[in-house]
Amino acid sequence: MPLDISDIGKEVLNTHYAVRGPIVARAKELERQGRKIIYCNIGNPQALGQKPLSYVRQVLALAQWPELLTLAPEAFPADALARAKEILDKSGFGLGAYSDSKGVPFVREAVAAFIRSRDTDSSCAVASDPEHIYLTDGASKAVQAVLRLLIAGPQDGIMTPIPQYPLYSATITLYGGRQVGYFLDEASGWSLSKAMLEKAYLSAQEKGIRVRAICVINPGNPTGSVLSRDNIAMVIQFAKEHGLSILADEVYQENIYRPEDRFVSFARVLTELGEKVLSLFSFHSCSKGYLGECGQRGGYVEARNVSPEVLAQLTKLQSVSLCANLTGQVLVYLMVRPPHAGEASRETFLRERTAILGELGERARLLAEGLSKIPGISCQPVAGAMYAFPCIRLPQGRTDEDYCMALLEATGICVVPGMGFGQEEGTAHFRTTILPPREQMEEVVDKIKDFHASWI
Amino acid sequence: MPLDISDIGKEVLNTHYAVRGPIVARAKELERQGRKIIYCNIGNPQALGQKPLSYVRQVLALAQWPELLTLAPEAFPADALARAKEILDKSGFGLGAYSDSKGVPFVREAVAAFIRSRDTDSSCAVASDPEHIYLTDGASKAVQAVLRLLIAGPQDGIMTPIPQYPLYSATITLYGGRQVGYFLDEASGWSLSKAMLEKAYLSAQEKGIRVRAICVINPGNPTGSVLSRDNIAMVIQFAKEHGLSILADEVYQENIYRPEDRFVSFARVLTELGEKVLSLFSFHSCSKGYLGECGQRGGYVEARNVSPEVLAQLTKLQSVSLCANLTGQVLVYLMVRPPHAGEASRETFLRERTAILGELGERARLLAEGLSKIPGISCQPVAGAMYAFPCIRLPQGRTDEDYCMALLEATGICVVPGMGFGQEEGTAHFRTTILPPREQMEEVVDKIKDFHASWI
Repeated sequence: MPLDISDIGKEVLNTHYAVRGPIVARAKELERQGRKIIYCNIGNPQALGQKPLSYVRQVLALAQWPELLTLAPEAFPADALARAKEILDKSGFGLGAYSDSKGVPFVREAVAAFIRSRDTDSSCAVASDPEHIYLTDGASKAVQAVLRLLIAGPQDGIMTPIPQYPLYSATITLYGGRQVGYFLDEASGWSLSKAMLEKAYLSAQEKGIRVRAICVINPGNPTGSVLSRDNIAMVIQFAKEHGLSILADEVYQENIYRPEDRFVSFARVLTELGEKVLSLFSFHSCSKGYLGECGQRGGYVEARNVSPEVLAQLTKLQSVSLCANLTGQVLVYLMVRPPHAGEASRETFLRERTAILGELGERARLLAEGLSKIPGISCQPVAGAMYAFPCIRLPQGRTDEDYCMALLEATGICVVPGMGFGQEEGTAHFRTTILPPREQMEEVVDKIKDFHASWI
Repeated sequence: MPLDISDIGKEVLNTHYAVRGPIVARAKELERQGRKIIYCNIGNPQALGQKPLSYVRQVLALAQWPELLTLAPEAFPADALARAKEILDKSGFGLGAYSDSKGVPFVREAVAAFIRSRDTDSSCAVASDPEHIYLTDGASKAVQAVLRLLIAGPQDGIMTPIPQYPLYSATITLYGGRQVGYFLDEASGWSLSKAMLEKAYLSAQEKGIRVRAICVINPGNPTGSVLSRDNIAMVIQFAKEHGLSILADEVYQENIYRPEDRFVSFARVLTELGEKVLSLFSFHSCSKGYLGECGQRGGYVEARNVSPEVLAQLTKLQSVSLCANLTGQVLVYLMVRPPHAGEASRETFLRERTAILGELGERARLLAEGLSKIPGISCQPVAGAMYAFPCIRLPQGRTDEDYCMALLEATGICVVPGMGFGQEEGTAHFRTTILPPREQMEEVVDKIKDFHASWI
């Protein structure tokens, strides 16, 4: 007997991950048939033309083939050569050996230094311990490892925003836990309120669910919202009252586009509040921000207020598949330790970074404004991250899944239906990235406009 | 309340992975205190001085920073430049973009071509379909993905050899399944007999376990044995009779040291037998063989006789964490498409490969012979893979865990206790790699000899 679909467990079968679901499969099929597809389904900047940072790639090339240090030093800036030497020296064996399961020690130390420096100012000193940092193959794997710790049985629930990034719902289902959704308020820019958290918590309790943790995505995916310091303090307070751990998905921390917003980390607010009991897991990634190095799979999680016994379990889980890829680990290092003032690459680095973030901000504005002007579509401002999540009014009986499939067939634009992220009953949305180049962005907005008028 | 160890699920708590367990933790601690440690616990060739292949690193460096193609072409052989251009062209976006969840199509096509070419001769043509190949962050992740499909509930059992590589036992426990061990016969070079398979199967059935699959590791880890074609045919016959899937761990397929042995793949024997029903999953990796690129995390699984519906589930699971790292994917490409005759790097490639494999063979022989001569230790020949698994006679009441910890403290040699792999009741073993350089190998054998005499 071959392995049959009826043999597969219900956790696997029930797992859904919309960002790469049937609409994307259909897009690939159309592309094979020769159709031009604009992939707005996934935050994959370099697939839409974003260039990697020169410094980052120079150092990685040198680390891959160290002979270049002597064969072609003139092809590299002095600080890239020095950085590569430092990495080869400190890693001990370069990119080809397994590292510690938690990741190379000097990279974890650099991450801790980055967190301290990012979050400390004259009013508050934030500590960070490299032994509480784990380097992973992208942040997704880090989130999955932490959820694996948190979900001990089918009664265990994890609070996630609605709408949420489907990594969370997919992984919770796969691990046999319960997703406990709390709604974000679209009308007020997808804000987060204590009332909504309490409501979700109570309703889960009534169903016999043991709520274990709350996930917060800041800046928001798919919502594009940026949380205030007070909002974060409120979440911490809520988690504390109910004995929950917090998962803070902060992978878009560099992607903030409006002058009035700034990124505040959960680690910072936790420290401000003097909170020493509540467990916090914070995630970051090389795939987003201005690096956009999705394919290199670099990420980390920092754990706070987590006992050595629990950390030992996390280390053990990581050790079963040995370690994260070394290129991704080194990339994390370069993310947290960019060229400093006075170093040869500094100017190029700043120019490239500014250009990328400026361009993303401009596209975020163009897209949100453009979509908002379409009759029947409303779109909150895209304050951060890489997505718009517009609300669409649909004819009775039609779903946003129908809409997105029809949009793909009619225009070649590939977006993800709102139901893949979760939404208020009776509403419909789709998620689109802000990543198409500016000239293509206008085409995207125009095509959605024409399609919308014809379809509804 | 912080996350507490009492909150962690039993699957996580019960998971054990000896290769990086407490003895390794103690070794790291001793190293921090200034002790010289010889890490024989893990097959990590580059950490013990093995050099990466020049061609592989040249192409990866060019793929990381394609400017080198124009800035410093004279630093590279012509075929490395051409190969890098081809990779950049065929991948579309280089190393920084997410690929398809299954992996970059042209790499999967190259893997399929490699399998066809490896397994086809005048007597039998073996087919391979790129759509049935998945590129993963090392083979470990591929094994885990397949076990995730196979274990649907707590009654599901997976047959593994005893001794086995603890990835299997750890993952089966983590996924809530049952490990069904079948013993290998140490006295006859760790051979595999149908009687032992039937015995294990029956005993599992009596316990109410639904056996789903059998894992075979060939060449063997930790045993160093190499299976014959007839042995493989017997396993296929056994699996067919009981409706099992097969997991064929073939990551050491290049590591065969004796002229009388050769690698025969399960795919080849399946084809010879005309078997079109039984599901086979075959694994391969860039971490072993002559590449030894453990840190780059490249691997793949090929599925045979698996329905599109089941493959769709595997694709979905892979999509939740997006894709394998692109450097690892490209490395798989370079593994299956090395320099051909007439290409500029051919000679260097052959020289480096021959030196590495020749050296490994020599160390395998030295180690097995050296250990065998120690009174109280017996060691089967190391015909393949990267390990010896000697049997040690211990005083009453002492375990191989005690032995390995004491060996570490006394000599700085870090090996893994046999109980981490499984062994016949009443026997004791340890696993050591064959990887220390030759001069160190003699030191290792001598130190074990002295330690053994003093400890028992």
